Amino acid sequence: MKFYQDLRVGEKFELGSRTFTAPDIKAFAAKYDPQLFHLDEAAAVKSHFGALCASGWHTAATWMRLMVDFLQRGDAQARARGEPTAEMGPSPGFREMKWLKPVYVGDTIAYASEVIEIRASGSRPGWGLMSVRNTGVNQKGEPVISFISVVFVQGRGSKSGEPS
Amino acid sequence: MKFYQDLRVGEKFELGSRTFTAPDIKAFAAKYDPQLFHLDEAAAVKSHFGALCASGWHTAATWMRLMVDFLQRGDAQARARGEPTAEMGPSPGFREMKWLKPVYVGDTIAYASEVIEIRASGSRPGWGLMSVRNTGVNQKGEPVISFISVVFVQGRGSKSGEPS
Repeated sequence: MKFYQDLRVGEKFELGSRTFTAPDIKAFAAKYDPQLFHLDEAAAVKSHFGALCASGWHTAATWMRLMVDFLQRGDAQARARGEPTAEMGPSPGFREMKWLKPVYVGDTIAYASEVIEIRASGSRPGWGLMSVRNTGVNQKGEPVISFISVVFVQGRGSKSGEPS
Repeated sequence: MKFYQDLRVGEKFELGSRTFTAPDIKAFAAKYDPQLFHLDEAAAVKSHFGALCASGWHTAATWMRLMVDFLQRGDAQARARGEPTAEMGPSPGFREMKWLKPVYVGDTIAYASEVIEIRASGSRPGWGLMSVRNTGVNQKGEPVISFISVVFVQGRGSKSGEPS
C-alpha cells in the first residue's frame, strides 16, 4: 500500500473480477447462508429471486479477496522497484452496505474501490484513516453491491506494527 | 418468521454461539481474506493483532449462519404447532458494521439480534421492513461485532413470493 499521505481522494483501484459459479455459490451458502435460493436451483426458481443466486455475504467476501490480492500485488511490485510499502492496520468497520441486484450463476462481477476521504488519525499518531467506496458491477453494467469501508494506513516515517 | 405485524421493537432473538477454531479461521481466510494474521500463527504474533484471529467477514458470515439456523428452527416449531409462518424477502443491505475487538482462536461468540424498528413497506404493499441491531459478544463479555441489518418480512394476509 502507499503511505496515507500519498493517497488522493478520487483515486480509483480496479480490483479485478470474479465469475460466480453454481458450485462456489452453493459451497459458501452451505457453510454461511443455507437458504434454499442459494442452495438449490429448483427451489430458487420458485423464490423471489427467480434463480439460484449468491449470498450477499459471498459477494462481499469476494470483494475482500480481490482487495487483498490487489494490495499484495501492489506491494510486490513496489518491493521489486525497491520502494517502501505502507502497512495497513485493522478496519474499524464499514457502512452503507447495499445489495442492489442479485448475483446469479454465471454473473461476472468487476470490483472497484474509490478513495473518498483521507485524514490523519487522531488516536494513532503517524497513521491515517482512508475511507473507500467499494462497488461491484455485473457484466450488464448493473451495480450489484456498494459499501463504504474504512481502514488505517501507515504514514511515512511512522512505526509499523501499529496501531495496536 | 412471525408476520411483521406480530414483531415488537425491543424483541430480542438469542441466535446461539460459535467457537472459532484455527482450522475454520484459516479455511475462511484462505478463500476470502488471505492476510497473514488470519492464516499463520507465527506471522500473526508479529502483527498488530498479536495472535491468529478471524477475518471480520468470517465473524459477520457466522452471524448470518446462526440467524438462518434460528429462523429455520422457529419456522419448523411453528409448523409443528400448525401455525402459519411469514416469508422473509431479500435484505436491501445493512449499516454501521463495527468490528470492535479481534476474534482469536478459541473465542466463543454469542450472537443476538434486537428489533429496533418495524414499519410497513412503502414500495411493497402488505410487507414490512424490520431493522435489527445484531451483536456478537465473546466469552469475556466483550462485544466484538455490531451492525444493523434490514430485511423485508411478509405481512399477515399478503401473498408470498413477493417482493420481487
